Amino acid sequence: MQLFFRYNRIVREQWYRWCEEVPPEELLRERTGGVGSILRTLFHVVDVEWSWIRVLQGKPDFEESFEDYASLEKVRELDRLFRPDVEDFVSRWEDSMETRVLYNDTPDGKVEKHAWGEVMRHVIAHEIHHMGQLSVWSRELGRAPVSANAIRKGLIEPAEPPRS
Amino acid sequence: MQLFFRYNRIVREQWYRWCEEVPPEELLRERTGGVGSILRTLFHVVDVEWSWIRVLQGKPDFEESFEDYASLEKVRELDRLFRPDVEDFVSRWEDSMETRVLYNDTPDGKVEKHAWGEVMRHVIAHEIHHMGQLSVWSRELGRAPVSANAIRKGLIEPAEPPRS
Repeated sequence: MQLFFRYNRIVREQWYRWCEEVPPEELLRERTGGVGSILRTLFHVVDVEWSWIRVLQGKPDFEESFEDYASLEKVRELDRLFRPDVEDFVSRWEDSMETRVLYNDTPDGKVEKHAWGEVMRHVIAHEIHHMGQLSVWSRELGRAPVSANAIRKGLIEPAEPPRS
Repeated sequence: MQLFFRYNRIVREQWYRWCEEVPPEELLRERTGGVGSILRTLFHVVDVEWSWIRVLQGKPDFEESFEDYASLEKVRELDRLFRPDVEDFVSRWEDSMETRVLYNDTPDGKVEKHAWGEVMRHVIAHEIHHMGQLSVWSRELGRAPVSANAIRKGLIEPAEPPRS
């Protein structure tokens, strides 16, 4: 699981660098699908990751709106602010947490039960899914998207077989 | 890791059902980004998943072209054909396979080394990424996309805390 957080971190950083080459108005332009713009997507990914991890810890989550973070630098700054909490929580993950129950209030007044392990996979898949949306918008802008490859990122060092 | 294969299987089946409601010409229409059409994306996901698992096993991978599978029914049939191999391989996964090395010939004549664990994460992220692309195209068609949520799919049964 930690491995996918490292993957997402690498890919997200590469999207930030991709954004540096794109005019700010294109990053903010409303687009079809997802949460509606490139920068809002990155903000949303940062927000959702941190918020779920806060909720698991019984702490208040992030409630601010994108309008206060509508520049690449502000989104990256927010990300840098949240990052230690996320990395700390992920690095302390243990198998026993997989089935731990989260009771979560939904907007319609119900209480849902989620296993912590599901919530963490939700955070992982959520980011990969949204990066897929960015890749379409990237092509619409005539630009090559960031690669979604999980190979060639040095995530696991392959073990050499013993020489005979 | 098995958990993400189950997640992808559920989401993929939901996209197939989504496709049933969409005119075939829309499924085949060329679009911007990814591999270029909705059905070609689903074909590509099925192809790539099976092919990597075949490569790990030292078996020939899938070399046929989309043109021979350009209908929803044919893609689903191919998926059904490959599915037992994929599920069998995934269900036999062991920790010791994580760092096992794959030597893989690239089109430009080089040989790459990948850890098996990386390859499996690659297959997982690859599918989630492409489903993100489908979600944009879905909105372009004025349709709600399949949910990418990993919560609410029954992937892990939460353990009730002991009553005090």
